[in-house]
Amino acid sequence: MCVLGLGLIGGSIMRAAASADYEVFGYNRSVEGVQAARFDGFDATTDLSEALTRAAEAGALIVLAVPMPALPSLLAHIADLAPDCPLTDVTSVKSAVLDEVTAAGLRARFVGGHPMTGTAHSGWAAGHVRLFSGAPWVVSVDDHVDPAVWTLVMTLALDCGSVVVPARSDEHDAAAAAISHLPHLLAESLAVTAAEVPLAFALAAGSFRDGTRVAVTAPDLVRAMCEANAGQVLPMVDRFIEILSNARDSLAHNNSVAELVEAGHAARTRYDSFSRPEIVTVFVGAENWRDELAAAGRAGGVIRSALPSLDSPR
Amino acid sequence: MCVLGLGLIGGSIMRAAASADYEVFGYNRSVEGVQAARFDGFDATTDLSEALTRAAEAGALIVLAVPMPALPSLLAHIADLAPDCPLTDVTSVKSAVLDEVTAAGLRARFVGGHPMTGTAHSGWAAGHVRLFSGAPWVVSVDDHVDPAVWTLVMTLALDCGSVVVPARSDEHDAAAAAISHLPHLLAESLAVTAAEVPLAFALAAGSFRDGTRVAVTAPDLVRAMCEANAGQVLPMVDRFIEILSNARDSLAHNNSVAELVEAGHAARTRYDSFSRPEIVTVFVGAENWRDELAAAGRAGGVIRSALPSLDSPR
Repeated sequence: MCVLGLGLIGGSIMRAAASADYEVFGYNRSVEGVQAARFDGFDATTDLSEALTRAAEAGALIVLAVPMPALPSLLAHIADLAPDCPLTDVTSVKSAVLDEVTAAGLRARFVGGHPMTGTAHSGWAAGHVRLFSGAPWVVSVDDHVDPAVWTLVMTLALDCGSVVVPARSDEHDAAAAAISHLPHLLAESLAVTAAEVPLAFALAAGSFRDGTRVAVTAPDLVRAMCEANAGQVLPMVDRFIEILSNARDSLAHNNSVAELVEAGHAARTRYDSFSRPEIVTVFVGAENWRDELAAAGRAGGVIRSALPSLDSPR
Repeated sequence: MCVLGLGLIGGSIMRAAASADYEVFGYNRSVEGVQAARFDGFDATTDLSEALTRAAEAGALIVLAVPMPALPSLLAHIADLAPDCPLTDVTSVKSAVLDEVTAAGLRARFVGGHPMTGTAHSGWAAGHVRLFSGAPWVVSVDDHVDPAVWTLVMTLALDCGSVVVPARSDEHDAAAAAISHLPHLLAESLAVTAAEVPLAFALAAGSFRDGTRVAVTAPDLVRAMCEANAGQVLPMVDRFIEILSNARDSLAHNNSVAELVEAGHAARTRYDSFSRPEIVTVFVGAENWRDELAAAGRAGGVIRSALPSLDSPR
């Protein structure tokens, strides 16, 4: 397996895959990252062509673990040197990555991924062999995906300790806008609003700390997420403002926020009791397998051990 | 001391004050609350007149620990039977309470209070002798407050284990709107927004959980807070929507949320490093003591041990 980019996520995948007995090697642009990985006993290089040539010879699964802006030039190199390797990524937006991969002519062997974990820190040193333990790892089931590559990516995620959530790229991005990108923008806006009010920081406690916790995230990461998913974030922000504005008007005219508060409490209660059934009945590669997995994931289903595929022993 | 209302806060004050060797008795409307308090060894009655007559005879500090809607009729009884007792409250809005107290003709002996703590539960059984340990307890320094009553309330808060934050009622309410009431409305709105998106609950993790945590709060409590403080909540919601809308427009037109994200990160960072100096130099009752305390509280100052008053030994 070949990991391109040895930051928090890529570096953690390298550690987790190695500990699961994968033969894994990696590339990182900066010499510091490569030195740190080598110091910890891993096989890493700053020479992209060398890494890709080696991947092509081995038919290795290539993991794209670089930030979005670095993707186009990286994909061009892969199209040159390792066009037939199975390919996945770990980026927090899926449609934009799929578009880049398609533009580079690499779609046929690509299955997108998104391990839903992270820390406030970044870089090789922040990584950890157990970063993915128990975390959901979204594996895309778009119409084009190849069953064999899908199985490879699912297996990697499981071997890293994750549970796999199958999802279409567009649905992933809408959901990520609702449960991650919008909450980040709310946290930033709340911090700015409160900062303007004398005495606010002096009294701030639980609900303010909870509501602004993710504003601690490095600004560049927040920007990268929201801006790469603007198409989904914008309607989500609009809907949020509509809901909040309705409550505001009801408070102004009827001195009541009952409707919002009842609905919000009910929604959060529903989330707390949301069940996570295990997906066990789908054969990867069978008729409608992608739609079935997308529906199962939408209903909360997760894959905890490798699904059979049509050509595997039953 | 006389506690009116033996729910979570009133019941906890009764326990904490008793453990600090106060002579404390209480009233509760429901017989269940009184029985529970008595079962735990406390002096409680369902007879309001009896409690108030006893308070008047002892010149006891009366603590209003009932919900806002119960306040007017309770204050009318106090004005009848114990009009000269020093008076405080524990309600999460301060201007509305001050208005009711003023309307009942009880302002001269009133100093508002707000212990900034709580749990998701309510009632006598949810209370705890250490509920206030280390928590901020706002004590009002409005223009009218009497130094002797102020010292009584400050001392009660300290004896319950709190740190005291002096603040004007109007500034408290604006700050509470920013750091508590607005965050509650945001959490409710986020939960409603995400609930409409397929796959959202299936992927929801840290930032969604943080952002909706206070939506777990009982709807009646959220309504009571926001609706009693509508005058401060409305402009805060408007300002929040303005800040978020500006970011939305910047994302739509320039594909950038840089301005918001930088400002939000800076504000949250400033909050994290907000210092809490101890207030030690103010004499309660000295010239401008109320303004000095309000300014010190605004700057983050807290009272950790009783301030001297002009007639106390120096």
